[in-house]
Amino acid sequence: MVPTTAVILAAGLGTRIGGRPKGLLKVAGREILYRTMKLLSNEGVKRFVIVTNEHYVELYREFIEKHGFNAEFVTNPTPKRGNGYSLHLARGRVSGRFVLVMSDHVYSEAFVRGAVKGKGLIADRKPEWADVEEATKVKVENGKVTRIGKDLPRWDAVDTGFFVLEEDIFEVTSSLVMEKDSFELREVVERAKLKVTFVDGLPWIDVDTPEDVKRARRMLIKSAVKETGDGFISRHLNRKISTEMSILLIEYVSPNLMTVVTFLFGLLSALLNLWNPAVAGILYQLSSILDGMDGELARARLQTSRFGGYVDSLLDRYVDGAFLALLAYSTLSEPVWWLVALLALLGSVMVSYSTERFKAAYCKDAYRAVPTLRYLPGKRDERIFLTMILLLPGQVKALFALLAVLTNLRVALTLYLVKKNLPRI
Amino acid sequence: MVPTTAVILAAGLGTRIGGRPKGLLKVAGREILYRTMKLLSNEGVKRFVIVTNEHYVELYREFIEKHGFNAEFVTNPTPKRGNGYSLHLARGRVSGRFVLVMSDHVYSEAFVRGAVKGKGLIADRKPEWADVEEATKVKVENGKVTRIGKDLPRWDAVDTGFFVLEEDIFEVTSSLVMEKDSFELREVVERAKLKVTFVDGLPWIDVDTPEDVKRARRMLIKSAVKETGDGFISRHLNRKISTEMSILLIEYVSPNLMTVVTFLFGLLSALLNLWNPAVAGILYQLSSILDGMDGELARARLQTSRFGGYVDSLLDRYVDGAFLALLAYSTLSEPVWWLVALLALLGSVMVSYSTERFKAAYCKDAYRAVPTLRYLPGKRDERIFLTMILLLPGQVKALFALLAVLTNLRVALTLYLVKKNLPRI
Repeated sequence: MVPTTAVILAAGLGTRIGGRPKGLLKVAGREILYRTMKLLSNEGVKRFVIVTNEHYVELYREFIEKHGFNAEFVTNPTPKRGNGYSLHLARGRVSGRFVLVMSDHVYSEAFVRGAVKGKGLIADRKPEWADVEEATKVKVENGKVTRIGKDLPRWDAVDTGFFVLEEDIFEVTSSLVMEKDSFELREVVERAKLKVTFVDGLPWIDVDTPEDVKRARRMLIKSAVKETGDGFISRHLNRKISTEMSILLIEYVSPNLMTVVTFLFGLLSALLNLWNPAVAGILYQLSSILDGMDGELARARLQTSRFGGYVDSLLDRYVDGAFLALLAYSTLSEPVWWLVALLALLGSVMVSYSTERFKAAYCKDAYRAVPTLRYLPGKRDERIFLTMILLLPGQVKALFALLAVLTNLRVALTLYLVKKNLPRI
Repeated sequence: MVPTTAVILAAGLGTRIGGRPKGLLKVAGREILYRTMKLLSNEGVKRFVIVTNEHYVELYREFIEKHGFNAEFVTNPTPKRGNGYSLHLARGRVSGRFVLVMSDHVYSEAFVRGAVKGKGLIADRKPEWADVEEATKVKVENGKVTRIGKDLPRWDAVDTGFFVLEEDIFEVTSSLVMEKDSFELREVVERAKLKVTFVDGLPWIDVDTPEDVKRARRMLIKSAVKETGDGFISRHLNRKISTEMSILLIEYVSPNLMTVVTFLFGLLSALLNLWNPAVAGILYQLSSILDGMDGELARARLQTSRFGGYVDSLLDRYVDGAFLALLAYSTLSEPVWWLVALLALLGSVMVSYSTERFKAAYCKDAYRAVPTLRYLPGKRDERIFLTMILLLPGQVKALFALLAVLTNLRVALTLYLVKKNLPRI
C-alpha cells in the first residue's frame, strides 16, 4: 500500500541560503534530505529519484553514496522552468504510485508515517510550525483541490510539499509542457484537480531562511520526546529546560558526549554530599534535567541506538546508588537508619529493574502493555526532585524513609498490575 | 517441510499399567500424550488423527477437548489385530507427508525438534534412557531398514516409535491387510523398506511399567536444564541436588508454590543473620539450591511462563538485598564499611540488571548474543556460595569487600564485552 518509490524535487538553486543545495543543509546534525530519505525508507520506500540541477548533482551523488541510499538522478538543465517542469522530467523513471517530496522541507517521523498512507496532495489544516504566510495554501471541495496559491483570501489547509501520486500525473505535466515553457507544481495540482488527504497538526516545516533553520531545530527537539517512562516532574519541569538546552547544543554535541557529561555531573552531585547535602540535592536535580538531553539529541538527530539507551540506563543506576550511598555515609550513624538507606537504594534500582525485566520477558514496553503503570509515582525524575526538596531543609531521614517505602511499594504494585493485565499482554 | 498432520497410535489396551490408556498416564504432571501433542504443535503440526479402541475413545475425546487440540478419532474395533492394522485404519484421513507416533512414548523437546525434520523411521544409535533390551531394534543398510525386531543379534539403532511417512505407506498396509488378519507396525516397516533418519542421544523413552514412569520422570527433569545463566556452582553442585528434589516432588508441587517456598526460605535465611551469620549463610546456600527447582518443575511440566520467570527474578533480588542488608545491620558499625555494604548490594543487583537490561534493549538473551559473558564470574549461584564460605569463619568484611569489587567489575566487563561485540549483535 505504501509506495516503494519517491521522487524528490531538488532542482531549485537555493538563492536564499547562500547557493548551496538546500537538501544538504544540516539541521539538528543531519542533512534535510537525509532525514526525509531515512524516514521514507523506514516506511517502506526502497528507491529514490532525485531531480536536481547540474551544479548540485555531484554533491548529491556524494551524499547518496556516503549513506548508501538506492537513488538515481535526473538532471534538470533549466531549473528556471519551474518545479512543475522538474516533476515532468521524472516521467519514465517511476511507475504506479509514488511519493513526491520537496527537498527543503523538514518532516517529523510522525508526519511521514501518516502522509505515506495518503493520496494526492497531503495538506495540513492545523499547521503548527510552518510559516503560514509564506506557505502555499489550498482550497478543498469534495476532497479535491479547487484553488492553490500563496495569496488565497480564503483557504482550508496548507500544502505540506508531500504528495502521493499516480503515474497518470504525467499526462497532466505532458500537456502543460506542450502549452508553456515553464510551470510550477501548483499548476499541475490545479489542472489535475488532485485529491487531498489531510494530515493535521503534526510537525513539519519548510526551510527557506536561517530563521526557518532555527525553527526547524526547535521543532525537531520538541517533537522527539520520549514516549513513555517520563514522570510528572519530567513532563512539567525537566523537559521544558532540557529541550531548550538541546536546541542550543544540537549542532555541537553528540548524544554520547552528553551521556558522559551527565554521568560525571551526577557523580559530582553524589560526591557533594560529603560537603553539603542541600547543594548536592540541587546538582542532583540538575543532573536529572541533563539526563533527558542525550535522548533528545539522539532522537532529533535520528541517531538513537539501543546501546546508547543501555549504557544510559546502567549509568543512571550507578548515579542514584552513589548519591544515596554517599548521602547516607555522610549523614547517618545509627544502624537502623543504615538499614532504611539500604532499602531505599535497593528500591530505587528495583523500580527500574521491574520495568526493564518486564521488557526482557515480553519484548514489549511495560508502559504500553500495561498503561496503568504510567500513573504510579516513583519514577526517577520524581524521586530526584523529591530528594532535592527534602535535602534543602536537611530532612535526610525522612527522605530515606519515604524512598524506602515509595519505591518498594511501587515495585509491588507493578507486579500486581502486570499480573492483573496478563490476559491482555 | 515439517508435516502438518500427525497420526497417533493409541489403540493398545494398556494391560501392564492397570487398564487405563497409556497415553493419558501422567508423567511429571502431564499426560504422555499431552506432552507429545504439545511438542509436535510447537513444531508446526496442526492436526492430529488418533487411532484408538472403543473403550478409550471417550476418555481421549474429553482430553482433547480440555486442551483444545485439533484432533479427530479413528476407532479400531479389533485392537488385537496389531498396530500395523491400526495404522492402516488412518488411511484416507491423512494426505501427503505425516508424522506417526506411539502414544506411550515420552519425547523431549530436543528430540521432537530433530525428529520432525527426518524421513521414514527415526532411529537412535545412542539411546540414553530407553530400555534397550525391551526396545525394538533395527539393522540399517544404505539408509534403509533391512531388519527390525526386539531380538536382533546384531543391530545398528533403536526404533524410537517416531516416524515421518508419506501417503504411499498405505499401499503397503493395504497389501498386508489382504494377506493377513493382523500385523504389527514392524512388518509394515520391513515390507516398505523404510528409510531411516538417525537422531542420536537425545532424551526419549518408551513407558510400559511403573519403573519406566520413574525413569521418564528423571529423564524429563534432568533434560530440562536451563540453557544459560547457570554459573559454575549451579552446574557442578546446585543442579545435582535440585534435580533430585524436583524428581521427588514433580507430581505434587507446582512451580508457583516452589517459587513462594524458595522466597520465604530466602527471607528466613536473611533474618537468621540477626542471630548467627554462619547459619544464615548455610541456609542462604540451601535457598540457592531450592531456587533452581521452580524452573526445573516448570520446564519438565511444560508449564514455563514468562510471568513466572519475571516474578522469580524480582524475588531473587529482594532475597539478596534482604540478606546483605540484615547481615550488614547485624555485624557492621563503621560508616566506611556500611558504604562497602551498599556497594556490594548495588553491585549484586546490577549484575542481573546488566544482563536483563540487555535483553530489554535487544530482545535477545545476553549469554547467547555475547557468549564470552558466560565465563565471567559473579553469577548469583557463585555469589551465594562464596557468601556461605566466607560467613562460616565469620569473614563478613572480606565478603562485603569482595562482593563490592567482583560484582561491579563484572558489570563494567559486561558493558565492555557488549560494546566489543556490537557488530555481531
